[in-house]
Amino acid sequence: MERLLRKCQIRNQLVRECLAECLGVYVLILFGCGSVAQVTTTQDKKGQYLSINLGFALGVTFGVFVSRGVSGAHLNPAVSLSLCVLGRHPWIKLPFYIFFQVFGAFLAAATVGLQYYDAIQAYSGGELTVTGPTATAGIFSTYPADYLSVWGGVVDQVIGTAALLLCVLALGDQRNSSLPDGLQPVLVGAAVLVIGISMGANSGYALNPARDLGPRLFTYIGGWGVDVFKAGGGWWWVPIVAPCVGALLGTLIYELMIEVHHPASPPELQTSCQEATEGKTGLELEGPHII
Amino acid sequence: MERLLRKCQIRNQLVRECLAECLGVYVLILFGCGSVAQVTTTQDKKGQYLSINLGFALGVTFGVFVSRGVSGAHLNPAVSLSLCVLGRHPWIKLPFYIFFQVFGAFLAAATVGLQYYDAIQAYSGGELTVTGPTATAGIFSTYPADYLSVWGGVVDQVIGTAALLLCVLALGDQRNSSLPDGLQPVLVGAAVLVIGISMGANSGYALNPARDLGPRLFTYIGGWGVDVFKAGGGWWWVPIVAPCVGALLGTLIYELMIEVHHPASPPELQTSCQEATEGKTGLELEGPHII
Amino acid sequence: MERLLRKCQIRNQLVRECLAECLGVYVLILFGCGSVAQVTTTQDKKGQYLSINLGFALGVTFGVFVSRGVSGAHLNPAVSLSLCVLGRHPWIKLPFYIFFQVFGAFLAAATVGLQYYDAIQAYSGGELTVTGPTATAGIFSTYPADYLSVWGGVVDQVIGTAALLLCVLALGDQRNSSLPDGLQPVLVGAAVLVIGISMGANSGYALNPARDLGPRLFTYIGGWGVDVFKAGGGWWWVPIVAPCVGALLGTLIYELMIEVHHPASPPELQTSCQEATEGKTGLELEGPHII
Amino acid sequence: MERLLRKCQIRNQLVRECLAECLGVYVLILFGCGSVAQVTTTQDKKGQYLSINLGFALGVTFGVFVSRGVSGAHLNPAVSLSLCVLGRHPWIKLPFYIFFQVFGAFLAAATVGLQYYDAIQAYSGGELTVTGPTATAGIFSTYPADYLSVWGGVVDQVIGTAALLLCVLALGDQRNSSLPDGLQPVLVGAAVLVIGISMGANSGYALNPARDLGPRLFTYIGGWGVDVFKAGGGWWWVPIVAPCVGALLGTLIYELMIEVHHPASPPELQTSCQEATEGKTGLELEGPHII
Repeated sequence: MERLLRKCQIRNQLVRECLAECLGVYVLILFGCGSVAQVTTTQDKKGQYLSINLGFALGVTFGVFVSRGVSGAHLNPAVSLSLCVLGRHPWIKLPFYIFFQVFGAFLAAATVGLQYYDAIQAYSGGELTVTGPTATAGIFSTYPADYLSVWGGVVDQVIGTAALLLCVLALGDQRNSSLPDGLQPVLVGAAVLVIGISMGANSGYALNPARDLGPRLFTYIGGWGVDVFKAGGGWWWVPIVAPCVGALLGTLIYELMIEVHHPASPPELQTSCQEATEGKTGLELEGPHII
Repeated sequence: MERLLRKCQIRNQLVRECLAECLGVYVLILFGCGSVAQVTTTQDKKGQYLSINLGFALGVTFGVFVSRGVSGAHLNPAVSLSLCVLGRHPWIKLPFYIFFQVFGAFLAAATVGLQYYDAIQAYSGGELTVTGPTATAGIFSTYPADYLSVWGGVVDQVIGTAALLLCVLALGDQRNSSLPDGLQPVLVGAAVLVIGISMGANSGYALNPARDLGPRLFTYIGGWGVDVFKAGGGWWWVPIVAPCVGALLGTLIYELMIEVHHPASPPELQTSCQEATEGKTGLELEGPHII
Repeated sequence: MERLLRKCQIRNQLVRECLAECLGVYVLILFGCGSVAQVTTTQDKKGQYLSINLGFALGVTFGVFVSRGVSGAHLNPAVSLSLCVLGRHPWIKLPFYIFFQVFGAFLAAATVGLQYYDAIQAYSGGELTVTGPTATAGIFSTYPADYLSVWGGVVDQVIGTAALLLCVLALGDQRNSSLPDGLQPVLVGAAVLVIGISMGANSGYALNPARDLGPRLFTYIGGWGVDVFKAGGGWWWVPIVAPCVGALLGTLIYELMIEVHHPASPPELQTSCQEATEGKTGLELEGPHII
Repeated sequence: MERLLRKCQIRNQLVRECLAECLGVYVLILFGCGSVAQVTTTQDKKGQYLSINLGFALGVTFGVFVSRGVSGAHLNPAVSLSLCVLGRHPWIKLPFYIFFQVFGAFLAAATVGLQYYDAIQAYSGGELTVTGPTATAGIFSTYPADYLSVWGGVVDQVIGTAALLLCVLALGDQRNSSLPDGLQPVLVGAAVLVIGISMGANSGYALNPARDLGPRLFTYIGGWGVDVFKAGGGWWWVPIVAPCVGALLGTLIYELMIEVHHPASPPELQTSCQEATEGKTGLELEGPHII
């Protein structure tokens, strides 16, 4: 059996990375949107808002575990973009990463739609709506609270994604904290957990264009129709654009307040840095900038 | 005292493995079904659905801690089967593993029945029923939600178990993530937690034929009668068959999207692999495939 | 300042161990009973049963962190007794350990009583009662549920403490699982968490004679009177006797099903075992048997 | 891009430390007060008291991750003060640390005020009040429960901060527990979690003068007015003064009951201590005394 599998081996690095990003985001959305489906269709009987926070947090953790050794586990176009701007990731790979991130999210939303088909039918009486008392589009992508202005939503997503990048960069900054390797994915998940706990009320903390657009496309073609783009005053572009701005802002704040001021490494550290640069570049340098 | 104990030493490897699998599943079910008993008999006053999720998650974690050094902590016939298909576990051991996994679950269900005897009597008015307002059979094994079709239940269990294997294989894949040894059982528990949070609504996420069949047999002979096999349209076979299919599917997805594409190990890694193959085969090779 | 403190240094090992056990149990009860006080006096508004489970779990974790390097962090007379029976702890120290464990619990209960004085007065209308709608004795020590028979309570505490020892011994068994040092206190806390989640409904999972007797003595002299010994049909002796039986039972099960069957260590391990026996005996051998 | 950033490098150690303390407290309050804002403005629909506990706990964890490598992550004037008294931190730095801790908390409160602007307007009907049914000042700083006397509040904060220091000092005491490096920030967060779970009912567990004063100043100038200083019988000074007393008390207890009694290090340990003292003094010695 293992020999049979071995024959399917792909050696192209970019293809491997795209598969890993796709599967990583798939796992993230499968658990994340699944937890929303569970809370929505059981009307809070088998879960509450905290379980949605945990669903996305652990979804991120396992999405990172699935992909970090291959692609560095960006799992988020806004993160990929920040790394390109910082010069830590090649621009040429960016469109491929983004496409497969969105595609993975789309596939996961379809899986959740399949797994919760009976439940959604029972809960909504068979009518797939974006707003109203038995709306189910919110299982898949984010919509703003009634009180939220578009500008308020942009601010919300910019702050949230900036906070995410602050945490992720701190976790990956070896001169600030030296984490045991296996803890990073757990702590990136914890960052998503605390953001969901403290910044989820306004618009559901997308923080990630792929996390929002992929499932929205699924709902668009899966029966909810064009309302998914119209609802919330044409909300759909906010969780695509604002996280990119926020990711850059968070990166800038962390770099300017902490990272650039680290003193030049002492000799021993330089040696190990050299090693890293020569031998393990790809993974090691990208590894820390996970999510 | 220690000398007295030492006299009971068993040297047969298979017997030791069977005892470990039995005790591992016992711990898993003792905590898992215990948490359902607590929530059911106190009518959500001393726990909620999230505490059931935590009960099974930590049950798995401690079940793994109890048995991983001896048997590799499969704790699940579907996992044992997948490992046999992949050629990582001898087929000859499979029936022994399965028998003791089911037997451990049966004993644990009996223990929960004993510990909650007074509580179940008080809650149900002394009548042990499988359906109805004071049904208590759901403490021990899983039953589908009213809305769920049998086909929907099969899909639900296949997806759930595939997601479990995806996570477990990623945690054990040294070339993807190198975990500190003691974190693996915790993270396998976290995988069960997030599956319970995101895929528990339809049919109670058995994911494991032993977890469901052992306690169902206990309820059958313990006073709930033949209804435990009839309820839910003859539901009982779904959590036995579907997890096996799901486990194989999840294994296939992880192998084809991630593991087979890992480049051949560099020299240094090969050496350490050789060491592992020669000196520590049994445990080290099976170790990662825990649950 | 540090020099001033240094002058108070005590070199007697037993005194140091007694101080550590006292402070360890103090921390455990301070957080544990504090969480019950918070849930009780706010009537579930600032916490629920799960937060009590977390309070005792993290109480144990930090109790272990405070004392493990000095006394091995037994924190529980039933654990000390088991270790004496197994020959891993000297019988001569047992009465001292037990006294200071109970004394630490007493002091912590008094601290909780002080911190929640205003709250208890406001909640109970100034009347300190053991039963009834505004009973507050349950903040400090455990009482059985109405439906529970004494025999059922004994079974409940025996099973609960046996489960605790099973987990603790598995965590400390280097040939079964090799934990990073700092994770042990966290996982012992997790064991207490899952026991609270799955075995807390019947009688509040004391599992520990000191945890129950110390606070009960505080309530006896602190204004609740002799009812604290009369309530629940003279319940008070159950959480003292049954945990000792359960701890021995759990030890026996783990030893007979797992630990005694480990093969004799290979040469390399023997050497490190010898080292441990010669150089670091005290702490290292007791270290694992924490709680 | 990285070169551009590199040009902004600051080499002054004190400035770097102040920036780190400022950003660390910023992260702590951003997540902490954000979680209160979410629970308050959604009226418990998107969170409960436990999620506030988690918000502050993980806020502390990530605040420590952001700053520990640079400033040692005090994040709390009471902690800085204790370290000065113990002679482990220079008195000359104290005012700078305190100012930037308070300033970071102020900025974070302003950010939460911005992010939740629409939500607070909708919840309060546009009226920013300190007391009453739609009071929102409690999002930012702490106020006592109705039943609490001032003396009771002082006792509450003294006990709470003493408990915090007990835990933090135990986590940092290498001769008591040797933690993996990356676990410390997580466990300091866990200490804040359990304090919130067991000591949050009376007055919201400030434990930290900066955490309370910074946001209170924001509410003072941000529209809530002078009531923020008058409410609760002039409560505002308690969470400034009492934590300082409590921190010193907790330090004293831990030192006198555990740390001063550690035997003089054996030769091998002395060597590694010497290394630490010579080579890595600054960070390593302060590192453990985080929060």
